Amino acid sequence: MKLNQKSVETLRVLSAEMISAGKAGDAGVALSGSAILFALFKDHYNFFGGEKYVNRDRFVLSASSASSAVYALMNMFGLEISGVDLKNYAQFESKTPYSLEFDVTEGIDCTSGPVGQGVATAVGLAISQACLAEKFNVQKFDIINNHTYCFVSEACLMSGVAQEAVSLAGTLKLKNLILLYNSTNTTNDGNLSSINNENIRAKFRAMGWKVITVYNGNSYLWNTFSIMRAKHSLRPTIIIFKTKVGHGSTLENDYTIHNEILGHNEIEKMKADYNLNGAFNVSNEVKQFCMRTSRRLKVKYSQWERRVVLYKNTHPELAEQLNAFYEKPKIQFLKILKGKMEQSEDVLEFNNIVLNQIASVRLCLMGGNADCQMLTKAVINEKSFSKNNYRGRNILFGARNCAMGGICNGISLYFGAPTFCGALLSNAGFLLPSIRLTAQMKLPVLYLFTHDSVLDGTYGKLLPTEQLSQLRAIPDFTVFRPADNTELLACHSVIYENECPSALVLSKNLQPKIENSDFEQAKKGAYVISEDKDAEIIIFASGNEVKIALEAKDLLNKTNKKVCVVSVPSIELFEKQSEKYIKQVIKSDIKIRIAVEASNDNVWHKYIGLDGLFLNINSYGTSGSDIKAMEHFNFTAKNLVNQIKSMKVGK
Amino acid sequence: MKLNQKSVETLRVLSAEMISAGKAGDAGVALSGSAILFALFKDHYNFFGGEKYVNRDRFVLSASSASSAVYALMNMFGLEISGVDLKNYAQFESKTPYSLEFDVTEGIDCTSGPVGQGVATAVGLAISQACLAEKFNVQKFDIINNHTYCFVSEACLMSGVAQEAVSLAGTLKLKNLILLYNSTNTTNDGNLSSINNENIRAKFRAMGWKVITVYNGNSYLWNTFSIMRAKHSLRPTIIIFKTKVGHGSTLENDYTIHNEILGHNEIEKMKADYNLNGAFNVSNEVKQFCMRTSRRLKVKYSQWERRVVLYKNTHPELAEQLNAFYEKPKIQFLKILKGKMEQSEDVLEFNNIVLNQIASVRLCLMGGNADCQMLTKAVINEKSFSKNNYRGRNILFGARNCAMGGICNGISLYFGAPTFCGALLSNAGFLLPSIRLTAQMKLPVLYLFTHDSVLDGTYGKLLPTEQLSQLRAIPDFTVFRPADNTELLACHSVIYENECPSALVLSKNLQPKIENSDFEQAKKGAYVISEDKDAEIIIFASGNEVKIALEAKDLLNKTNKKVCVVSVPSIELFEKQSEKYIKQVIKSDIKIRIAVEASNDNVWHKYIGLDGLFLNINSYGTSGSDIKAMEHFNFTAKNLVNQIKSMKVGK
Repeated sequence: MKLNQKSVETLRVLSAEMISAGKAGDAGVALSGSAILFALFKDHYNFFGGEKYVNRDRFVLSASSASSAVYALMNMFGLEISGVDLKNYAQFESKTPYSLEFDVTEGIDCTSGPVGQGVATAVGLAISQACLAEKFNVQKFDIINNHTYCFVSEACLMSGVAQEAVSLAGTLKLKNLILLYNSTNTTNDGNLSSINNENIRAKFRAMGWKVITVYNGNSYLWNTFSIMRAKHSLRPTIIIFKTKVGHGSTLENDYTIHNEILGHNEIEKMKADYNLNGAFNVSNEVKQFCMRTSRRLKVKYSQWERRVVLYKNTHPELAEQLNAFYEKPKIQFLKILKGKMEQSEDVLEFNNIVLNQIASVRLCLMGGNADCQMLTKAVINEKSFSKNNYRGRNILFGARNCAMGGICNGISLYFGAPTFCGALLSNAGFLLPSIRLTAQMKLPVLYLFTHDSVLDGTYGKLLPTEQLSQLRAIPDFTVFRPADNTELLACHSVIYENECPSALVLSKNLQPKIENSDFEQAKKGAYVISEDKDAEIIIFASGNEVKIALEAKDLLNKTNKKVCVVSVPSIELFEKQSEKYIKQVIKSDIKIRIAVEASNDNVWHKYIGLDGLFLNINSYGTSGSDIKAMEHFNFTAKNLVNQIKSMKVGK
Repeated sequence: MKLNQKSVETLRVLSAEMISAGKAGDAGVALSGSAILFALFKDHYNFFGGEKYVNRDRFVLSASSASSAVYALMNMFGLEISGVDLKNYAQFESKTPYSLEFDVTEGIDCTSGPVGQGVATAVGLAISQACLAEKFNVQKFDIINNHTYCFVSEACLMSGVAQEAVSLAGTLKLKNLILLYNSTNTTNDGNLSSINNENIRAKFRAMGWKVITVYNGNSYLWNTFSIMRAKHSLRPTIIIFKTKVGHGSTLENDYTIHNEILGHNEIEKMKADYNLNGAFNVSNEVKQFCMRTSRRLKVKYSQWERRVVLYKNTHPELAEQLNAFYEKPKIQFLKILKGKMEQSEDVLEFNNIVLNQIASVRLCLMGGNADCQMLTKAVINEKSFSKNNYRGRNILFGARNCAMGGICNGISLYFGAPTFCGALLSNAGFLLPSIRLTAQMKLPVLYLFTHDSVLDGTYGKLLPTEQLSQLRAIPDFTVFRPADNTELLACHSVIYENECPSALVLSKNLQPKIENSDFEQAKKGAYVISEDKDAEIIIFASGNEVKIALEAKDLLNKTNKKVCVVSVPSIELFEKQSEKYIKQVIKSDIKIRIAVEASNDNVWHKYIGLDGLFLNINSYGTSGSDIKAMEHFNFTAKNLVNQIKSMKVGK
């Protein structure tokens, strides 16, 4: 008991020292949550075994400003964080950056992101665990029984993304999910009562959660006991730990500590109170105490390994299926799907065929839609994932656009494999914070957007204009906008092979077949789709507008103008090609340069230069048919030709 | 009683006919909600009086796909929608577009937007009503006592933005807010039970709402009675009307109707069942019955007018204050604030001073922050708006970024006046769907973003990269990124005068004073801030990077290179200037063209052309100080000069 107390106090001092040295972080959360996090690490969180150990527990820090406490614990429990790393907290190129980073620090399960995202990711981790357990556990062989823990603060729970995720987790009865709520009754801007007055216990119960309250969240014993109870729950569980913000500091119980960094004297006072010495110091006694846990987990891991060996012997078929579950066979997209590609008149339908072809060989692929699967048709044609069917691969997210992306991030993290989700492009805004995390973690999540421009008609002001630009602006993210079935298949092929964070953006009116479209060429992101010798005009286009560009070429040819048309299914992919290839396609010696896209993405100015013409859309949609919309927005070959003819190039 | 039934049936048939003619809309929602909406229009919704009547009720259609029913009611109740307008539902340039549009159709209080936004807007409308009532109502003179009604479906309530808004409304005890929940237990993608299993009644109660359930939402009497009860509640109220999706059609109770359009035969069957004749027909009997309400409201309006006259006589001071409340005095920004501008060392601090200067004369200005007011400093320095203080002008939104923008839209709609909200730029993603609505409605909402690039250091991967591009991509929206106090003041001056939807994006490290920055010039969006005669190099920059451009100029001057530097506080504003002025600033005859901005916004390629150099940032942040970040990302004058020197222009 005494050592537990000592350990928590050591953790508090370490956090305070780190935050002070790094001039970053939130001592308010880190100090108040120390006894919770310590109980978790000491007795519950099965962190041993590393990334390849699928049955290890997962820990998500949603309250990212408390990262100092997590690093300090990793140090105390003998994970790959040294005392020097602690001193370098939030410093440039350190192993302990301000927010947890999946790819920087070994042992971190998930990069911390925008507020609330952690909760969505945790729900995704729990979904994939439930799926794997259902498929492969057999009586006496619970080879998959890990838990997902997520540490949250007031702010996380207030966010819509967390609310959506919590609601879905309750609906799906994800019993292996445990939220650790560090309840200080404060936020950055004040005391909670004037900011959020809800009855959190009743609210979570209403959403199908088990609620446990710990009135003294500073008590290691109560904390560890409550986590144990949560692990035996048959529903997702939130434990509300009542703690004091900035526990142990001079600013205890004062919300302003969220925005303060403790000074040298304050930290010295803490140390004196706790009878601790030295800087960034973990006493041997505490170290040994913590290392007992690590040793225990090591034993636990070898037990699991033995269990798996036994499982393989007694259930060879399941063991084989488990291997196959993760396999990534080569798919010869063109060979397998050429026939269907040529037959299919509806590109969204064909996209469904391709997705299901992938799903049939990539067994761990899961996906879902935000209440629009009848529109996107981006569905794995199997029974849905539900509380009664954890074998399902198609998730009914409901209108939870905000959480959907984060949940897919979690699934992809757990399986180390691709996921997809479908939405209308006009709703892309809701997904941007999670896409950012997808890109930062380089996860193979595919965002499938349909109804991609105001030219898709009918829905008027609800149709997208700026969303394509917004998606392309995300670093380390690849956006695909194919022109027909052939290019669509090429995009899928690239996405499948590269497993990169990406979006596939489709018009509901997309042509099934554009003349000269080429599977191999499309894989380069951009290619000359039609060209006259000595062309004097070059037109770049993507998606449904390639057709307009080609029609304009025909019209221009009639007046003896020579034209080159470039189809650009993916700008990001194109810019990764060799300098030589890029030059060949851009042809900067052609003076009359045009881009056509039903978006307002200024990226085209890179290719058309100061005197170029960008036939774009920079306003909102209008109700009515797609044909009316094309006319209204002047997206016709005829108008394009007229505009080209009136261009003043070189003046 | 019989006429009520007849009216509801007429409404159903009209909706079905409109959806069928327009090939758009959702008969599932429209038919099931008819009896609710009719009871609202018939007995409660005080729609008479037009836009200038501040005390009229407000109605927000969050479930936008049910717009047909609203237009049909407007026609039945004698508002400005004709039978022809109904026939033209969802057609090009009609007065009845697919989603309700504030600026297209007289009598519509709010444009419908992305899922859930309506709820946030409704909360904003209720906040401003509470504020106005508190400030100006006196005993016996409730001159402000209107209600805000918001019609929602399953999807709306599942969305995070609605959840955030609902939570805040409960905390603020907004008793004049009434949600009408058309509960069909279905969504587009299936039955609700497998998509959202929560106990909605318990959940809303936990958030401080009054909950009323109507088990037969097809009963006019129960519906109208429950709305009456809600109007007398002391808390915000949700009425759960249990209805059957697609009521009265052959697809009644079948969720697939959400994605179907009823055919001719099905509509004819409905008419036969209801004993109704003709196409788009409202019988005289029904028309007269509805018009009784309109007459009653007309009387009510004149009573209100008389009450106001009396109020002016008995409370002349308050009446005067009420007038002053809406006034928009001229502010001579430079004259009043020049001293403080020159003294202020901290631009965020100075921004606070400007905001408070505006607030001191523009009395209806309200604003708030998403749990970051200590960081943004974008606060009206008064007591906060809370359930105990409806006079407050500073709203503590908590970490409800998603709902914050929508709520500001609502406030701005109610007052017809500016609002602002503050957030960290990295969280801009959450706000994009509401910003889209701000822009579509052309509302004077100012989004104030700080910590605007990875060069602001410390927060590492949490810092923004793509957000500036994403904001600038929004049509009809103006983004300002000033370089110092002078430009900041100029931006505020433009925003104040133009009252346009806009964002102000600030670095926390912004310089208080850049040499040659100019208040009047900055109002043009871009201007030459420093120029050598016969310049051979032109550098465009915004925000904190203007300083780097000027330093680079000094270095280049030392090697006898002649340079022109253009400061661009707002690209959108600049592009609205005269063609002549734009040419003067762009100087397209200069061959060596550079842009510097800590973003990845390709818009700069418009100004630098094919051979231009864009010193940009297209990756995520890194922990550590801002100085380390500047070095890491090569954002130094020295690097810029080196890059310029190695440019191959014209080859």
